[in-house]
Amino acid sequence: MQAPSFIASGGVGASLRPFLFRGSVSQRLGAPPRRTLAFPRRPVVRNCVTLSTNAAPPRSAACTRLARLRAEMARRGADAVVVPSGDPHNSEYAAGMYSRREWLSGFTGSAGVAVVTADAALLWTDGRYFLQAATQLGQEWTLMRGGEKGTPSVREWLTEQMRSGSKVAIDPFVHTAGATEKLRVALEEKDVALLLLDPPNVVDVAWGEERPAPPKGRVRLHPLEMAGVGAAEKIAKVREAMREKGATRCLFSMLDEVCWLYNIRGEDVPHCPVVISYALVSENDAILYIDSDKLDHVVTAALVDAGVTVEPYERVVPDIAEAATADGACIWMDGASTSVALHNAAGDAALLEETPVCLLKAVKNEAELKAMRAAHLRDAAALVQFLHWLEVHVSDGSTISEVDAAAKLRTFRAMQEGFIDTSFTTIAGAGSNGAIIHYSPQPDECAQVSRDEVFLLDSGGQYVDGTTDVTRTMHLGGTPTAHERACFTRVLQGHIALDSAVFPEDTTGLALDTLARAPLWGMGLDFRHGVGHGVGACLNVHEGPHSISSRPSSAKAALRAGMIVSNEPGYYEDGRFGIRIENLIYVVEKETPFEFGGKKYLGFERLTHVPIDKSMIDVELLSKKEIEWIDRYHEDVWDRVSPLIEDENEMALRWLMEKTEPIKAPVTAS
Amino acid sequence: MQAPSFIASGGVGASLRPFLFRGSVSQRLGAPPRRTLAFPRRPVVRNCVTLSTNAAPPRSAACTRLARLRAEMARRGADAVVVPSGDPHNSEYAAGMYSRREWLSGFTGSAGVAVVTADAALLWTDGRYFLQAATQLGQEWTLMRGGEKGTPSVREWLTEQMRSGSKVAIDPFVHTAGATEKLRVALEEKDVALLLLDPPNVVDVAWGEERPAPPKGRVRLHPLEMAGVGAAEKIAKVREAMREKGATRCLFSMLDEVCWLYNIRGEDVPHCPVVISYALVSENDAILYIDSDKLDHVVTAALVDAGVTVEPYERVVPDIAEAATADGACIWMDGASTSVALHNAAGDAALLEETPVCLLKAVKNEAELKAMRAAHLRDAAALVQFLHWLEVHVSDGSTISEVDAAAKLRTFRAMQEGFIDTSFTTIAGAGSNGAIIHYSPQPDECAQVSRDEVFLLDSGGQYVDGTTDVTRTMHLGGTPTAHERACFTRVLQGHIALDSAVFPEDTTGLALDTLARAPLWGMGLDFRHGVGHGVGACLNVHEGPHSISSRPSSAKAALRAGMIVSNEPGYYEDGRFGIRIENLIYVVEKETPFEFGGKKYLGFERLTHVPIDKSMIDVELLSKKEIEWIDRYHEDVWDRVSPLIEDENEMALRWLMEKTEPIKAPVTAS
Repeated sequence: MQAPSFIASGGVGASLRPFLFRGSVSQRLGAPPRRTLAFPRRPVVRNCVTLSTNAAPPRSAACTRLARLRAEMARRGADAVVVPSGDPHNSEYAAGMYSRREWLSGFTGSAGVAVVTADAALLWTDGRYFLQAATQLGQEWTLMRGGEKGTPSVREWLTEQMRSGSKVAIDPFVHTAGATEKLRVALEEKDVALLLLDPPNVVDVAWGEERPAPPKGRVRLHPLEMAGVGAAEKIAKVREAMREKGATRCLFSMLDEVCWLYNIRGEDVPHCPVVISYALVSENDAILYIDSDKLDHVVTAALVDAGVTVEPYERVVPDIAEAATADGACIWMDGASTSVALHNAAGDAALLEETPVCLLKAVKNEAELKAMRAAHLRDAAALVQFLHWLEVHVSDGSTISEVDAAAKLRTFRAMQEGFIDTSFTTIAGAGSNGAIIHYSPQPDECAQVSRDEVFLLDSGGQYVDGTTDVTRTMHLGGTPTAHERACFTRVLQGHIALDSAVFPEDTTGLALDTLARAPLWGMGLDFRHGVGHGVGACLNVHEGPHSISSRPSSAKAALRAGMIVSNEPGYYEDGRFGIRIENLIYVVEKETPFEFGGKKYLGFERLTHVPIDKSMIDVELLSKKEIEWIDRYHEDVWDRVSPLIEDENEMALRWLMEKTEPIKAPVTAS
Repeated sequence: MQAPSFIASGGVGASLRPFLFRGSVSQRLGAPPRRTLAFPRRPVVRNCVTLSTNAAPPRSAACTRLARLRAEMARRGADAVVVPSGDPHNSEYAAGMYSRREWLSGFTGSAGVAVVTADAALLWTDGRYFLQAATQLGQEWTLMRGGEKGTPSVREWLTEQMRSGSKVAIDPFVHTAGATEKLRVALEEKDVALLLLDPPNVVDVAWGEERPAPPKGRVRLHPLEMAGVGAAEKIAKVREAMREKGATRCLFSMLDEVCWLYNIRGEDVPHCPVVISYALVSENDAILYIDSDKLDHVVTAALVDAGVTVEPYERVVPDIAEAATADGACIWMDGASTSVALHNAAGDAALLEETPVCLLKAVKNEAELKAMRAAHLRDAAALVQFLHWLEVHVSDGSTISEVDAAAKLRTFRAMQEGFIDTSFTTIAGAGSNGAIIHYSPQPDECAQVSRDEVFLLDSGGQYVDGTTDVTRTMHLGGTPTAHERACFTRVLQGHIALDSAVFPEDTTGLALDTLARAPLWGMGLDFRHGVGHGVGACLNVHEGPHSISSRPSSAKAALRAGMIVSNEPGYYEDGRFGIRIENLIYVVEKETPFEFGGKKYLGFERLTHVPIDKSMIDVELLSKKEIEWIDRYHEDVWDRVSPLIEDENEMALRWLMEKTEPIKAPVTAS
């Protein structure tokens, strides 16, 4: 699955997503929109109970919502309010209680920013959502087509439209410091003030009792045999980094960082096994700010053992403010994800840099990799059985809708040991739906999976021991057109080139991006998203700091042994079909005959073991080495996955055997 | 030939070379030293008459030089003076009159900065030159090993060592604004003043009458049939860009930009057909600042025709200062190459951006390409005859030194129509000398070219119609070791991969760099220089703004149809051998089956047509497509170059036929 994009022309704060913008504030704000959007897709979160109250309201209800918001704005002295999509932790997926923009506007797309004034209500979103937003927004709303020529950004619009002396309000918990500062400066030039509103959030007041309650997901321990390193040892490493940096405190507001640090997992957020919380580490303390109702005595005891104390979630702001008053206080926090509320609480004591956990978390240890490998094999067994089931049912003429397919796949995954949830909303796109990069099938209107069209399936699971993310593109009738096969084969060649790459340490994802595109470029093809994103170990399906893309941000973090990354080149032909082939791979040291420059050389091992549809391959286009790669991959899939297919599913086993047989190399292989 | 590097830890101003640093000042100064040095080599300028007076002085002479400099420093109230290598135009090669650091220190390497105080004389250079500098510097000098751990940069040393209240002096004509400002700020923090000295340069005063006179090279017109566009039309384009930018003047201080703009060429600087001059364009004027003795009536008449007026070279400073006083004055100049003297003359009116000529010059028109193609064919004919001559003489046991080889090659080039000069000092490295990336053979101490060793030859010519740059690596006995062949083959595979690349418009050299390295990486090999640099049409052998390297600067300019770039991956094994395969190629539009995103797709055509030594190739390592590439390349070489070999040189023709025969593809080709 691909990581989300940002709205190039809109978006203050929460729309600047962590995957793309780990790093300095200036880098986040200064980078111009690029030709290639990185991972321009985040499917609508639909399958998630906590969001079900946010279905598009009747238009009269939307009108009432605006009226209630405007009353609260008037009470607070705000002439305009900016309502982004996010939570206080810069999360990609947020709990339902934070879906303020969605509730207010009725627009359910994943990316968008609303601006409401006394007489206007505007919603910015990007090209992926223009159609959906136009349908869902009531007539009192104006759709701002972000990224289109002539559409001002949120900041530009506010700067141009707000009267001198007026006040623009934001909730400082859902905007980051960098974005806020840029907005403040722009507004002040026009003599417009930026109000940072105290809680409660103005939309929450309007939302009232209908607003979903804070999630009360149970917290569980992430076992040491999967984590590899205990919480106490991780905290010690953070303290070591703090001493090197001269920091007196280190604040963690990204939920996956908190969970990784304290070896806990939770169920507060759809698809992400995280807990709504903060962590604050000093030389003597390690605090977990959380609703303590979520902790049972086992977790509490383990936290005590690790030297972690528990404080109420809301205490983090006054604690930071108090810590900042100490002589020589230096509070380390990630400038790209920490809210301006916390940044302001720290004042001059704030040190804005990527936290030490960011890299520690990204470089998996052997225990984490072992657990991830195990989860991936069970996930592959589930997917193989599903793909067999699908092929049988589609080829016998049954009616299988995209939504049915996604549901059935979840059933196969749920039968696997340790299954918790999908790791994101399944993307099941038949025919032309496959070309919609952010496609998410809807029950009432989705297409049928047919044996006459290409089918793209991007899905993943959260298991107790690992997080998976895999895309396969197939033709269930086995008769794709020559053009579809040519395009698939070029994508596969890009996939193989990246998978096979060997490169010196210090190489960044920016340098590797080209390898996955070159075979497509040769035909005049390309795709408008990145090639790879980091993946957490039993954590979020998207994580940094590394990635493989043509965006400058991909040059910030070199690939290191232990990092997990997706390998997912694609090609999308509007109105016709979409192709993507995605495996998760991890970086390993590779032995090479020479090690020039005294350097280590690195390469990849695969986590994902699922057959690649041979009927989509035009073997004539492949080199001998590429054919060997495919045959070796399939042999490996058979060896690893067949033992996990239950004996009673002999038909699936036969299917797997056939799908993993070597392809016949033509004599013309180049 | 490869472009020069900069001294990571030293170097104020002139050591920041144009090829690497075209662009904003902040980008030049902010970029940290990177793992891969871009083009870390600039051979010592030796063959050049104007430099011949700068041979290392006897040590007593060096002592006297220092004493004379210190006397002048005292007279000017300077406690320290910084003496870089460059000229007022940020040229890579400079006329002898500017070799101040070389004259002063006796160190003849191409890169270095001297700092002299009342009691210390220090010379910074980089790792390429430590041995040479240690030999050449007198005992009164301290060698500062730039780039080594613990060695302060020039700025750090001055900031640490100069007493509060003291004064550091520089000649503002040979330092750029950005570098100067950074030095000034650092010094002021320690209460040390930075003096910008008025002319004459303090070293020149010490140098006295021994200093070479300003060159008086004749200026010639660059014919319209080779330039493609007349000077008047070029000036009009500059004015158009100025209007868009709101600039009232545009200053050109890079010599190749002046020459390109006015369609003139000269012989003031070794290897570069340029003229020491400035250009200044306004809406109504186009001025050439030059010593008018160099202009004959033909050139003068052509300049008048194009609307160009001639002013004395020295007038540029007062003219800029006067222009800056006008209401709304905005003087456009390149921040990366313009001296602080001119920048200060413009004051607040300065607009620091890459000039409009930079990109116009880099994107060659069809007339320029036609002329370049013609020059390259004659250059290939010269090289083919030389390579034949060399093989015959080395294999019959004659003694051919590296210097002899370079001289003979020049003779063959000089026999070609329109030959003017070599385009840089020939790099002829036998055996282990090939591994010294900046190697330049010296008459008294150079090695013999033997039939038992790998021989690397990097050379180029300046012709009336074009500039060439080509590297071939060969084994004249035809018996390289398996390891040498393996390494050569990997380099060749990288060369082929880049040559064959197809890519969408907007792709930068940074994205393509990986293609040329991936085959080497697979064996654990790499090389510490860039893959490609821009090349001028009858101009400098190194030009920007584009390049192909892993440096962030390679992401600044996308490759565009018409740009010329070198394709020169390599591999160097210290003490054993060096390999580099270099062709010049130019960017063309490529037809592709699809043109995804409505984009143009680009690729390369080759300018260089010289056989690649088949005895160095391990065919077993090649794919079928790679073998086809080599055979097609050689067929093309034969077709194009054989007609240019004179009938009387039948042996050379036979040699060329043999060298361009297809290689026998093994059945195992992958």
